[in-house]
This record gives sequence, structure tokens and C-alpha cells, in this order.
Amino acid sequence: MNVIQILPITNLPIIKENDDIAELICVAAEKQETPIRNGDIIIVTHVLVSRAEGCTVDLDTVRPSNFAQTVARKSGKDPAAIEVVLREAESIIRMRNSSLITLTKHGFICANSGIDKSNVPGERTVALLPQDSDKSARRIRQGIKKQTGKTVAVIVSDTHGRPLRDGEINIAIGVAGLVPLRDRRGEKDLFGYTLKIKRTAIADELASAAELVIGQANEAIPAAIIRGYSYERCEKATAKDMLRPLDKELFL
Amino acid sequence: MNVIQILPITNLPIIKENDDIAELICVAAEKQETPIRNGDIIIVTHVLVSRAEGCTVDLDTVRPSNFAQTVARKSGKDPAAIEVVLREAESIIRMRNSSLITLTKHGFICANSGIDKSNVPGERTVALLPQDSDKSARRIRQGIKKQTGKTVAVIVSDTHGRPLRDGEINIAIGVAGLVPLRDRRGEKDLFGYTLKIKRTAIADELASAAELVIGQANEAIPAAIIRGYSYERCEKATAKDMLRPLDKELFL
Repeated sequence: MNVIQILPITNLPIIKENDDIAELICVAAEKQETPIRNGDIIIVTHVLVSRAEGCTVDLDTVRPSNFAQTVARKSGKDPAAIEVVLREAESIIRMRNSSLITLTKHGFICANSGIDKSNVPGERTVALLPQDSDKSARRIRQGIKKQTGKTVAVIVSDTHGRPLRDGEINIAIGVAGLVPLRDRRGEKDLFGYTLKIKRTAIADELASAAELVIGQANEAIPAAIIRGYSYERCEKATAKDMLRPLDKELFL
Repeated sequence: MNVIQILPITNLPIIKENDDIAELICVAAEKQETPIRNGDIIIVTHVLVSRAEGCTVDLDTVRPSNFAQTVARKSGKDPAAIEVVLREAESIIRMRNSSLITLTKHGFICANSGIDKSNVPGERTVALLPQDSDKSARRIRQGIKKQTGKTVAVIVSDTHGRPLRDGEINIAIGVAGLVPLRDRRGEKDLFGYTLKIKRTAIADELASAAELVIGQANEAIPAAIIRGYSYERCEKATAKDMLRPLDKELFL
């Protein structure tokens, strides 16, 4: 019987700009006596990556545009924060009550362009999404290979709200080393029926599974290892495979 | 360090109408030497529940309405299948190309009213969603208590497509014994910042985690145990807490 384990990576230091996340994860995993193994999947919350890559903004340095000020007045939010949201956006998808859902420059549709206030040091500092989360995932994956010799997959995750359902779930915004969508069309079911439409977003499911240990205990666990899950390897993986093309979207 | 385990429940027999799922799960867990423990979360795919509860329809017994025939002609689908989709629907949310997204009588918005062809015996038989998945979850939970004396939580899951992202993920359509939405507003982050909007849909994340073992190996694993995850208990839990009220939905 194949049991899957979700291991928290505890005792990571507070990540600062230019920190080597791969190295710190390897050291922490070693220290807690769960050294990284071949085939492990490492899930890292994006705020960690954003902090290491310097993708943060001090709101006191931001000069809000007229439009940002208008939006801020209507929503009761900080004009500088709105300005940052707009700068990260390619277009605005929904704007109602105090919600601002944008299409980001990276191609994600999310609240406030994915800008995050929590787990960022400094009262007036926010974290942006990493510039290229696939690239960040690849860099961490290569770093782990270099550090330990082990071949792993890496997922950079973010907590997203979603249409139609309340509550946020963790999803994958960057991947390296694994095929994020498992195409099961053509497989047979229990009774020999051939599956016609099944494609499972396993990278999102792995990110959600990781959140069961991430963010517990005062947010002090920003990364996890999933061990024992078989996945299809891929050197050119991208989380963008899970973005539905806008012209095929029924809910826009 | 708290490790979470996802254990497949293997060697379940093919579930037939009136089978006692709780008993069969307890026996299978015992047989594979992972007997159920207090605090375990048992995830069961809804098709199993639908089969046990007789929520299946033989399409050969269905007489399609005129409207079902029209829709079937346009989409190239089986008129009887469309008829069943319409019978399970309260309204139609989107209807484009070959997609038919409905609001079901249970209050879910999903493709084809959640009707499933896979893992149902009989070439012309489909499974409906259980009539009341919370009630099904509660019944399984009580059955496990009776069988083993252990207090567990139960999630009835379904694989859903979703707006904005490609690929399906597993979500919770019925829950018993655990609070499905973890409200984290008011908690402090790593730097003392008070979280303002965070509510995590943990029942959905647990369902997604379970799918990492479910549906592998020719669909022969329809249930899983998640062990080691701390959750808030609740005797009156309902998965409906995760349905956003339609008037608050920005994407309809």
C-alpha cells in the first residue's frame, strides 16, 4: 500500500532578500531528520520566494495615481496599495464592492493582483507575486539538486479565492519537474469504460495538500515536502498549463 | 514534527445498492493493517455513495423531453443523458458549445448537474449526486463510530471543473464532524500582522489531498484516510458553508 506523507519544513529562518531558499530548505530538512529524497515534491509558498527575490514594495514609496485614489476612496482601502495592485495588473476583470479582481501581468486572474500583506516584514510593506514563478521553481529545483544530488519537483503556491465557492485554497502558480495536469483521457475505469474528459490538476491538488501543514502554528511553516506520490516528470513544466485560455472561459 | 499521512483504502469490494459503506471501509482498513483511529478523516468519492444509495439511472428507462432532444442535437450528446441532467437541475447557468453548467437541486454549480458516467456498472447507467451528501457523510461517520468506537470526520468528495483554471480538482460536497471552512481572521502572522480576510476551505483541500491516492490504479481506490491533521470538530457541519451565496458571486 502506497502511503503519501505531507511533511512540514520546520525551523526555516525568516527569509530575507537574496537568501538561497533551496539551500535553506535542504538544511532545514536535514536538521529535522527528513532529508530530501529523490522524487519528493517540495511546495514553497510564494511569499517566501517573493521575499528572497526582492519582490516587495514599501507602500510609503508609492505615489498613487488619480485612478488609484478614486478606487481607494470608493473602497476605503489604502491608495498606495491600490496603486500597486494596478501596476501589477494587465486588466481589471471584476470591480465591485471592495473586491478588485485583476488579470495580472503573469496571466493569473486573482484578487488584488495577488498582492499579499501577511508574512511580510514591515508594517507598510507588501509582497508581489514572483516575476516568473515557474522560473523560481526551476531555480529552487536546481539548487536542491546541486545541494543534495536529489531530483525533486518544486511547486510555488499561492492561496487563492475562487469563483462559485467560499474560502480560499492553495494552488500552484509555478512548477518545475512535474506535469501539472494529469491527462487521464483514454484510461479505463473500474468497469472498462474509457474516460473521456478527465484531466486532473494535480499540481493544484498537491499545493492544497501541502497547505494542511503550511500556515499552521502562527504561519511559521512556509514550505512542505510531499513524499510517496508518483508523478510524470517533465523538464519544461509550467503552471500556465492550468490557466484556461480567456476565450474558452464560460465565466467571464 | 507533525506528519500528515494520506492512506488509500484498498481492496474495497465493488459497492452495490444497499451496501453498508461504513462497515466495508472499516473492514478494508482493518485488513490492510491501518485500522481507523480517532481523529482520522475519511474521504469517500461520491460515486461510491451514489451507488450504495441507489442514486443511479439507467438511461434506457429515460424518456427525453423535447428540450432535452433539442439540446442533445446541438451538442451531439445522448438525449437521455441530457434529460437526466435537466431533471437534476434547478436552473441552467451556462450553456455553450458542448458545456452545460447547471445549478443543481442541491445548490451546487457544476457541469452536467454532477452526473457521472465513470465507475458506474452497466453501459447505459449513470450516477447522480447523492440526494443529501452531508447526510450521507453523517451516516458513514455514525456507522464507523458504531463499528469501531472511533470518532472520525467524513468527507464525500466530487471531482469538479472550475472557472478560470483548467483541470479538475477534488472538492467536498458533503461533510460530517469537521468545520469545513477554517476562519483565520484575527490570527496573527509571522510578523504580528492580524489576518483580515483569510478563510481556508480545508474540506476542499482535504478532498484534493485524498485524490492523490484515490483514482489511481484503474480507479480501484475510491476512498482514503487522512491521518494526523488537526481540525475543529463540529456535529452540525455542512459542505454548504462553502457555497457562495449567488448574490455575492462576482462571476455570474
